[in-house]
Amino acid sequence: MAEENVVFVGKKPTMNYVLAVVTQFNSGADLVILKARGRAISKAVDVAEIVRNRFVPTLQYGDVKIGTESLQGDKGDTNVSSIEIELRKE
Amino acid sequence: MAEENVVFVGKKPTMNYVLAVVTQFNSGADLVILKARGRAISKAVDVAEIVRNRFVPTLQYGDVKIGTESLQGDKGDTNVSSIEIELRKE
Repeated sequence: MAEENVVFVGKKPTMNYVLAVVTQFNSGADLVILKARGRAISKAVDVAEIVRNRFVPTLQYGDVKIGTESLQGDKGDTNVSSIEIELRKE
Repeated sequence: MAEENVVFVGKKPTMNYVLAVVTQFNSGADLVILKARGRAISKAVDVAEIVRNRFVPTLQYGDVKIGTESLQGDKGDTNVSSIEIELRKE
């Protein structure tokens, strides 16, 4: 899968990411993967639900994967939870 | 499934919910469902990963469901995202 089908959810406003996903679907993608870590996980779920409820009624969820990533920081490694949400347009 | 197999993740410290899940597995449950809404979604993912990585190595994820719930408030209804994470002990 091409990397441009991945949307990383971070600190920007929720609607920025909604727009990014909708734009990819409108450009012909039929699979977009939302990825997020830490506190942005809640926002990634918001993005998925807003896209589905307001913009792409035919959206289906594929796999929702949960994991842990290790981040290197000044005080050693930190573990942070992560999520990947597959969004499929029928 | 009995309701006591559900752990609602809210505003308490993460380890409280980890302990609740581990206690249920140690009491003989082979399925525990984590539920959370809004900002607690990130915490629910943390709880699942901490249980899996530190306490129950045989833990497997079942369905991870994403949805929207409508909450009634003073200023009308508010939509909030929700998650359900199935945890299965082999």
